[in-house]
Amino acid sequence: MMYLEDFQPGQTFDLGSIEVTHDQVVDFAKQFDPQPFHIDVDAGGQSIFGGLIASGWHTCSLMMRMLVDNLFSRTATLGSPGVNQIRWILPVRPGDTLHASTRVLAVTSSVSKPDRGTIEFHYDVRNQNDEPVLAMQGISMFRRRGD
Amino acid sequence: MMYLEDFQPGQTFDLGSIEVTHDQVVDFAKQFDPQPFHIDVDAGGQSIFGGLIASGWHTCSLMMRMLVDNLFSRTATLGSPGVNQIRWILPVRPGDTLHASTRVLAVTSSVSKPDRGTIEFHYDVRNQNDEPVLAMQGISMFRRRGD
Repeated sequence: MMYLEDFQPGQTFDLGSIEVTHDQVVDFAKQFDPQPFHIDVDAGGQSIFGGLIASGWHTCSLMMRMLVDNLFSRTATLGSPGVNQIRWILPVRPGDTLHASTRVLAVTSSVSKPDRGTIEFHYDVRNQNDEPVLAMQGISMFRRRGD
Repeated sequence: MMYLEDFQPGQTFDLGSIEVTHDQVVDFAKQFDPQPFHIDVDAGGQSIFGGLIASGWHTCSLMMRMLVDNLFSRTATLGSPGVNQIRWILPVRPGDTLHASTRVLAVTSSVSKPDRGTIEFHYDVRNQNDEPVLAMQGISMFRRRGD
């Protein structure tokens, strides 16, 4: 189990890969982001994107799944107060395989709650052509080992 | 249909309400954010949150649904390059009813692509007790009417 003290600025973590299928893209968008270019192949083709693309929130959610599976599941996370920036750099399309990694930007102990602290991470998600599709800076709270 | 020219800084839009059910919270988290306090009632109860809470990405996705249904469906949106800040202020719990609104912060014409521009919005999501649960600044691209 990794605690706050086990992270240092500059550390990087590979977060693995995930495939994006047509059905997942459309299902997510119908539920949460039913804009025509996310749910309809023809509308996507006629849009500036030249095809159906995934909701940006779907891409963030897929990144979160990689993050939980490959890093947070073995850490003492206490949730997140927020995100400092998201950039959806290139469209994510059905059939893409996304690969994520993260780098520790800053580790900060809480002044008011000495049993915990926050870590700012930079997240990088790329497609199968190694093109960046998502860049994000997020904050997460972690428990201290406190030994 | 609303185009870039139809938005001015200071305009506000009510984005309606949405209910958050236990099953939706767990289904979303199992798919995208399987941290114990998002998928397991007992783990949630023992966490610092004192109960099961929704993934922050679920809250963002629910906000997006309200935004599409109540504003973007009648605008010439061209997708989004990103988000400048997200703050998950208070936990969202099963049974909550969320209510969203948005305010136009800035309207900017594109220099390189005269047929479009970007709008920065502030988003505010509150629960049934009028407590803010999510604050966000997001950017969206819109087509100009170009008459």
